[in-house]
Amino acid sequence: MRKPLAEFIGTFTLVLFGCGAAVIAGGDIGLTGISFAFGLALIGMAYGIGSVSGCHINPAVTLGVVASGRMSVAEAVPYIIAQVAGGIAGALVLMIIASGKADYTVAANGLGQNGWGAGYLGEYTMTAAFVFEVVATFLFLVVILGATGAGAPSAMAGLAIGLALVVIHLVGINVTGVSVNPARSIGPALFVGGTAIAQLWLFIVAPIIGAIAAGILFRSGLLDAE
Amino acid sequence: MRKPLAEFIGTFTLVLFGCGAAVIAGGDIGLTGISFAFGLALIGMAYGIGSVSGCHINPAVTLGVVASGRMSVAEAVPYIIAQVAGGIAGALVLMIIASGKADYTVAANGLGQNGWGAGYLGEYTMTAAFVFEVVATFLFLVVILGATGAGAPSAMAGLAIGLALVVIHLVGINVTGVSVNPARSIGPALFVGGTAIAQLWLFIVAPIIGAIAAGILFRSGLLDAE
Amino acid sequence: MRKPLAEFIGTFTLVLFGCGAAVIAGGDIGLTGISFAFGLALIGMAYGIGSVSGCHINPAVTLGVVASGRMSVAEAVPYIIAQVAGGIAGALVLMIIASGKADYTVAANGLGQNGWGAGYLGEYTMTAAFVFEVVATFLFLVVILGATGAGAPSAMAGLAIGLALVVIHLVGINVTGVSVNPARSIGPALFVGGTAIAQLWLFIVAPIIGAIAAGILFRSGLLDAE
Amino acid sequence: MRKPLAEFIGTFTLVLFGCGAAVIAGGDIGLTGISFAFGLALIGMAYGIGSVSGCHINPAVTLGVVASGRMSVAEAVPYIIAQVAGGIAGALVLMIIASGKADYTVAANGLGQNGWGAGYLGEYTMTAAFVFEVVATFLFLVVILGATGAGAPSAMAGLAIGLALVVIHLVGINVTGVSVNPARSIGPALFVGGTAIAQLWLFIVAPIIGAIAAGILFRSGLLDAE
Repeated sequence: MRKPLAEFIGTFTLVLFGCGAAVIAGGDIGLTGISFAFGLALIGMAYGIGSVSGCHINPAVTLGVVASGRMSVAEAVPYIIAQVAGGIAGALVLMIIASGKADYTVAANGLGQNGWGAGYLGEYTMTAAFVFEVVATFLFLVVILGATGAGAPSAMAGLAIGLALVVIHLVGINVTGVSVNPARSIGPALFVGGTAIAQLWLFIVAPIIGAIAAGILFRSGLLDAE
Repeated sequence: MRKPLAEFIGTFTLVLFGCGAAVIAGGDIGLTGISFAFGLALIGMAYGIGSVSGCHINPAVTLGVVASGRMSVAEAVPYIIAQVAGGIAGALVLMIIASGKADYTVAANGLGQNGWGAGYLGEYTMTAAFVFEVVATFLFLVVILGATGAGAPSAMAGLAIGLALVVIHLVGINVTGVSVNPARSIGPALFVGGTAIAQLWLFIVAPIIGAIAAGILFRSGLLDAE
Repeated sequence: MRKPLAEFIGTFTLVLFGCGAAVIAGGDIGLTGISFAFGLALIGMAYGIGSVSGCHINPAVTLGVVASGRMSVAEAVPYIIAQVAGGIAGALVLMIIASGKADYTVAANGLGQNGWGAGYLGEYTMTAAFVFEVVATFLFLVVILGATGAGAPSAMAGLAIGLALVVIHLVGINVTGVSVNPARSIGPALFVGGTAIAQLWLFIVAPIIGAIAAGILFRSGLLDAE
Repeated sequence: MRKPLAEFIGTFTLVLFGCGAAVIAGGDIGLTGISFAFGLALIGMAYGIGSVSGCHINPAVTLGVVASGRMSVAEAVPYIIAQVAGGIAGALVLMIIASGKADYTVAANGLGQNGWGAGYLGEYTMTAAFVFEVVATFLFLVVILGATGAGAPSAMAGLAIGLALVVIHLVGINVTGVSVNPARSIGPALFVGGTAIAQLWLFIVAPIIGAIAAGILFRSGLLDAE
C-alpha cells in the first residue's frame, strides 16, 4: 500500500510541476525552464519517496526494471496503476489551478500534452518522434539502471537521473514535448482529448520499447560494473 | 540560542537573496533566474546552518515537522519567532540595497511580496492561489520529511529540498509569487503594505494547511521507508 | 568488451544530447541551455556507466589519464576507438531525428560542429580558438583528475566534472562551439564536411595538448592531496 | 608549494571562466548564465583542488577562515599571494582569448571588472554596493564555514558553496558585478584601469569585513553544530 501511494504522489508531482511549468509559465521560462521543472520535480521526489518505492513514477521505468530482472511483473502492476492514476490526478489539479487565469482554456492552452506533426511545436515527423522517444528512453534507463546498480554511489542516483531528464527535455521538447513516460502522457491527454488522444499510443509504445531494450542490456551483464 | 540564531540567519538569507533576485535582477534573469535564486539560497543555508537547526527557515516547515511527530511545539516556538524576525530583517536589508538605485521605490517596485488577482503577475484567482499554495507546500513537505527521514541519504536532503523549491517557483511565480513559507511572505508585506498586507492571510493559512497535512501523512507511517 | 560498450554509449549520448540541444533547440534554449545539455549529459552518464568504464567518453580525457599514470596505453586504445565510434553514431542518430523537421538540412543547420573564424558564431581567430581549447581542456582535466583522485569524495566526481563542462561551454561556445573532446568534434564533422573537416585538426590537437599537460602535472605529484 | 599552486590554478579558473562568461558570452547567456559560470567554476575547482588546499581561491575566504580560528596567519599569506596572482593570470588569459574577436577592446568591453555608480550596470550607489558586498560575503562565509564544519556532510560542501555563489551573483550583478572576492576584482581591474582601479578598494575592504565578521561569529561557537 505504501509503495503505490508513494508512486501516486510522485507521478502526481511530476505532471503537476513539469506540465504545470509549461502551461503556467512556459512563455516566461522557455524550454530551459520547463526542462529543469521536469528534472527537478523528479529529483525532489527521488529523495522524498525513493526510500519507499524507488521513485519510478514512470511505467516505462518500471517495465525496464522488470526487464533488467530486478523486479517481478506482479510487483510492477500496482506500481503502474498508481503511476497512471497519479498522472491523471496531477493533470486534473493542474487544470484547476490553470483555470484560475481568465484567458486560460484547456482547448487553447492545453495541459502540456505530448504530440508531433503539424501544429505541434517544432512540427517533427512521426518517425522522428518515435526514434527520439525510443532512443531517449533507452538512454534514460541506462542512467537509471546504472546509477542504481552495484558499484555506483547510490546516494547520487536520484540527482543523476533527474539531471538526465533535464537534458532529455532540453533536446526533445521541440520534437515531442518529451514523454519517455506513458503516465506523464496519459494524464494530460485524457483532459485535452482530440489529437493528444489520437497520438497517445506513440508515447506508450516508444518509451516502453526503449526501456525494455535497456533492461535487457543490463540483464545481459554487458553493463555490469567491474 | 544557537538554533534560533541559525534560523534567523537562514530566513534572512532566503528573503534577501530570493526576493532580492526578483527586485534587483528580475527584469534580467526572468522567472527562471528568480526560481533558482530561492532554491539555491535554501541549499546554501541547508549546508551552512543545517547541522545547527536543521534549516527549516520556514514556519510551515516547522509546523509540518511538529505534525509529523519529530519536534515538540515548545521547540517550534523559538524557531518560528526567529524565522519571522529573519524574514523581516532580510526584507529591510533588501530595501536598503534596492534603494541604492535612483528610480527604485518600494511602492512602485515592491520587495518581492506575494499576491494574486488583478495587477499581480498572471492575475490568477484567489482560489487558484489557495489551491496552489496548499498543494505545493504539501508536496514540498513530502520532499522535506522524506529526504530527511530514515532510509534516505541524509547528505543529499538539502540539495533535493532546495531543487524542489526551484521547481515550485518555476511553476508558481505567475500564480502567487510563491510563498509556501509564511516568514518569506510576512517580511516583504510589512514594508510594502496595502494589498500585500490584505492578502497576507492566505500565505500564512494555505502553507500551514499543506504542511500539516503532509506531517500527518508521515506520522501515519504510510510513507515510511521499507 | 564491457568498457568499450560503456564508452560507446556514453559518447553517443554526449553527442546526441549536447549537439542535439544546439541543433534541435538552440534557438529556444540559447547558449545557457546548450551548455547545461552538454554538462548534464555527462553527469547522467558518469553515474550510468561510470562504474563500468569510468565514463571518460572523451579521447583527450583518456590520454590525460594515461599521462597521469593511472591507465596504460594498451587500455586506452579500445577506449578511444569506442569513443570515436560513439560520437559518429550519436551524430548520425541526431541527423536522423533533426531531419524530421521540414526545413532542416545538414548543410544549412549543421550538427553542432566545432569551428572558428568567419561565419562561425563569434568569429574568433584560430589563435583564440587554440588557446581556449588548450586551456579549457587543461582545467577540465584538473577537475577530472583531482575529483577522482585520493582525498576527494569520489561520489561527487561525476557531478563536479559535468558542472565544469557546463561552465566551459558557457564561456566558450562563442569561441569554438567548445570541443575539449576530439570524439565530440569528429562525429558531427564527418557528416557536415567542408570547413568542419578542414578545421577538425585543432579540435584533436588542442584538447590533447591540454589534457596531457594536466596529466603530467598530476603525475609530478604537485597536485597530490595532503 | 602544492597549496599555493592549487590556489593559483583555482583562482585562475574562477576569473577566466566567471569573468570570461561575462565578457565572451554575456550578451547571449545573460545574468543567469554569468551567475552559473562563477558558481560552477567554483564547484569544479572545489572538487578538483579541494583536497589539496581546501579551494579558498578567495582572500576574503582565507581571512574568514583565519578569523574563525581554523588557519594561522602564517598559512594564509602564501594562499593570498597565490590567489591574487591567479586572478591576474586568469584576467590576462581572458584578455588574450577575448581579443581574438575583431571588435573586442579592453577599454570598450572590459574584463568583467567590478564597480558601481554612473555607467556601471544598474548604477547603484556606493553605499548600496558596500552594504551588498559586506552582507553577501558574510552570508557566503556562513555557508563556507558551516558546510565545512563538524556535523555537516563534508562531501557536499563544495557543491553548496558554489551554488551559494550562483545565487549571490543572481542578486548582485546589477549592484556591483559581484566581488565577494578581492582576487577576482584585482585581476580584471589591473588590465582595465581607470574607474576599475579607483573603485577597487571597496572590493577589497567590504568582502574582508564581511568575511571576518562571519569568522568571528563561528569562533564564538554560536553557530556550532549540536
